[in-house]
Amino acid sequence: MPDEHSRTVFFISDGTGITAETLGHSLLTQFDRIPFRQVRIPFVTTPAQAQDCLLQIQDAARRDGARPIVITTLVDASIGRQLREADALFVDFFETFIAPLEEELGARSSLTIGRSHGQAGSQDYLNRIEAVNFALAHDDGSSDRNLDKAEVILIGVSRSGKTPTSLYLAMQFGIRAANYPLIPEDFERQQLPEALKQRRGKLYGLTIAPERLQQIRSERRPGSHYASLANCRFEIEAAQTLMRREGVHWLDSTTKSIEEIAATIMHDAALDRHIF
Amino acid sequence: MPDEHSRTVFFISDGTGITAETLGHSLLTQFDRIPFRQVRIPFVTTPAQAQDCLLQIQDAARRDGARPIVITTLVDASIGRQLREADALFVDFFETFIAPLEEELGARSSLTIGRSHGQAGSQDYLNRIEAVNFALAHDDGSSDRNLDKAEVILIGVSRSGKTPTSLYLAMQFGIRAANYPLIPEDFERQQLPEALKQRRGKLYGLTIAPERLQQIRSERRPGSHYASLANCRFEIEAAQTLMRREGVHWLDSTTKSIEEIAATIMHDAALDRHIF
Repeated sequence: MPDEHSRTVFFISDGTGITAETLGHSLLTQFDRIPFRQVRIPFVTTPAQAQDCLLQIQDAARRDGARPIVITTLVDASIGRQLREADALFVDFFETFIAPLEEELGARSSLTIGRSHGQAGSQDYLNRIEAVNFALAHDDGSSDRNLDKAEVILIGVSRSGKTPTSLYLAMQFGIRAANYPLIPEDFERQQLPEALKQRRGKLYGLTIAPERLQQIRSERRPGSHYASLANCRFEIEAAQTLMRREGVHWLDSTTKSIEEIAATIMHDAALDRHIF
Repeated sequence: MPDEHSRTVFFISDGTGITAETLGHSLLTQFDRIPFRQVRIPFVTTPAQAQDCLLQIQDAARRDGARPIVITTLVDASIGRQLREADALFVDFFETFIAPLEEELGARSSLTIGRSHGQAGSQDYLNRIEAVNFALAHDDGSSDRNLDKAEVILIGVSRSGKTPTSLYLAMQFGIRAANYPLIPEDFERQQLPEALKQRRGKLYGLTIAPERLQQIRSERRPGSHYASLANCRFEIEAAQTLMRREGVHWLDSTTKSIEEIAATIMHDAALDRHIF
């Protein structure tokens, strides 16, 4: 058995390679002690390009003194056959799963490159663009116009992750997400901003550990009162007190990625994705 | 063999389910004549929740008169065993690929739930937030400040897809992407906007078929000169003439999804992703 030295991992696709990378990363993160060198080669569609990939794989094998791992989503089987001349571990998502699905469904797959369900002008594309525009128009409480069209309104202190989460919800799921800051004036009044009072059912809170917030705010304004740990502590506690009193459900984003925050909100708020 | 009636597909995960959905959708789009009913159940972590999933699967089987397809990314094997009491086609991503990887790498996987490499405060998270903030600050030519820090500057006519592409590049890859509109004044002068002249090497153009542009613009301003086919034709031709003369590489986004546009730009501009 080879030991745990550096290994080269290739992501090779005849499309964008995004699916290969997404799936590959979720596998590689399960082996966190191994230093992987990652090489991405998308849009491989000709025998000459496949030949070049093959040489790169063989090269890596020699340099590492160990078999590379080749993660592929290849629609064109002839490209796959060419690559398999290399001595490597092949992980092919389509090859592995398409055959059992064909048998189960009693149907042939229409394996084709570049099947885009979200291309410009399609309903998916328009939904996505509309949702992104909505998130931008309703970022940081910048407009109350059409706020009733929001499917969810994220609230929280400055830099608690509202903007990236709203954009992710829009981009990934086509959700119309507004976001609204909770600011010192709200804490003094101990009340939600006016525009939100009639929309309690749409509100979802984001909170974060004060130490993380300090770190994030310090990137932007180092040494400021705004970024100080004392102020971060105060704001977060005040925001949580306010949300608790107003019955707003919230999550702590401290140990979560944006994907996890967004998926949790979709689940908690029972939202349905509009794009696939 | 069962025939091609409606089938229920479950995406079940003890995490966000995003990986299961990514995998599943790229498989299901290969069977485009079958009307799939899709059910997403993320965050399944207890025996009671698994039991509830099992009942839902059995229910679907009765209703469809055909075995459901169950696509899972389960870290906890006991949850998987519970689900397998159902008569269904199981596609489990980890189960399929982790064993061969363990053997190849001579290492045990650290299969754990919720391994977030992008959690708040981590370098990945900060890179992502910084890139999203950059894209927002440099959306639609809104600021030339720090434009030199852009890794790529997207240009094109209004509604050619610059904003969602910039945000996608930021969110998905951590790329600092600015975007700048090409407007009628630029076409009259037959020159690039001043701020872009010194930054030709960073420019990347987006173009689109006039018919699609008309459709997209009509969503926003129906019946306007802005959205008319004649005007869309004029602007696109003028933009292409300008980009050709200035030696700006561009792509036609008409038949591409945002993922494909972004992946093509990453590839053409030889950009390296900053987040994984």
